[in-house]
Formats: sequence, structure tokens, C-alpha cells
Amino acid sequence: MCEANAYVKDGENEVLFMESVDTIEPYENGLKLMDIFGKQMFIQARIKDMNLLNHRIVLEKTSDHKHIKHPHEYND
Amino acid sequence: MCEANAYVKDGENEVLFMESVDTIEPYENGLKLMDIFGKQMFIQARIKDMNLLNHRIVLEKTSDHKHIKHPHEYND
Repeated sequence: MCEANAYVKDGENEVLFMESVDTIEPYENGLKLMDIFGKQMFIQARIKDMNLLNHRIVLEKTSDHKHIKHPHEYND
Repeated sequence: MCEANAYVKDGENEVLFMESVDTIEPYENGLKLMDIFGKQMFIQARIKDMNLLNHRIVLEKTSDHKHIKHPHEYND
């Protein structure tokens, strides 16, 4: 199977955001990811780099927000 | 192997841009793709959608320019 894991770059670290990602598409001001089980997650980020043979996608947040499902939860 | 083919959306059609893509990363105002053989191509585009299980990446041009490495491949 050719799914990949998506990581979010957080300073020096890369934090696992979602495993077994099948599809990625732009959604509003971020990305919508869907895993092989059909679960969807949204993140306000862009693709920083992607390495398919290593099953690895690194995302970079495009705002100070953490992920964005419920923007009202956030305070900056 | 989990490489994918990259297509560029051109109106209704999707035109094959690069086969056996391994890595994609942002580069200047577009994307740099590298295939499993190490060949690199640049395109002024963004990822429109990506389906890893189907080995399929669809790009959408972000300007009127065609892609940059081998413009002679295209005619319109």
C-alpha cells in the first residue's frame, strides 16, 4: 500500500499529524487529508515536502494556529 | 514502489507531466518534482489533489506559463 504518514513541522521537530494518508487536497486556506479508512482531517498548512518512496509528507503550518477544525477554540 | 504520476489540469483534461514522481517540494513560486531516477522538473503550479493509493497527483497551473523545463513538449 502506498499511503504515507503526514507530519507537521513544529520548530525543529516533526510531529505526526495523521497516519496512512491516502488523499490530500486544498481546502479553504489549508489542506484536507483523508486516510485509507476514510477519516478526514483539516489543517491550515501547506505541503513543505513530500517523499513518496519514504511514505512521508511534511506539512508546514501557515498560521500560528494549531489545526483548525474549530477555529473558535483557538486564541492567539 | 510508491511513486506516482503527476498530471497537469488543462481545462477538462489532465495532461501527464511527469512519471514516477518520488518527491515534491515548493520551489520559488511553484513546485519542484523529482522522479525516482533523480530527474527534476519545475512547474509553476500547486497541488490540486493527490491520491497516493492511485499513484496520482494532479497539479493546477498558477499562471499562464507552461511548465518550465521542457516547454517544447506542449502545444496550444
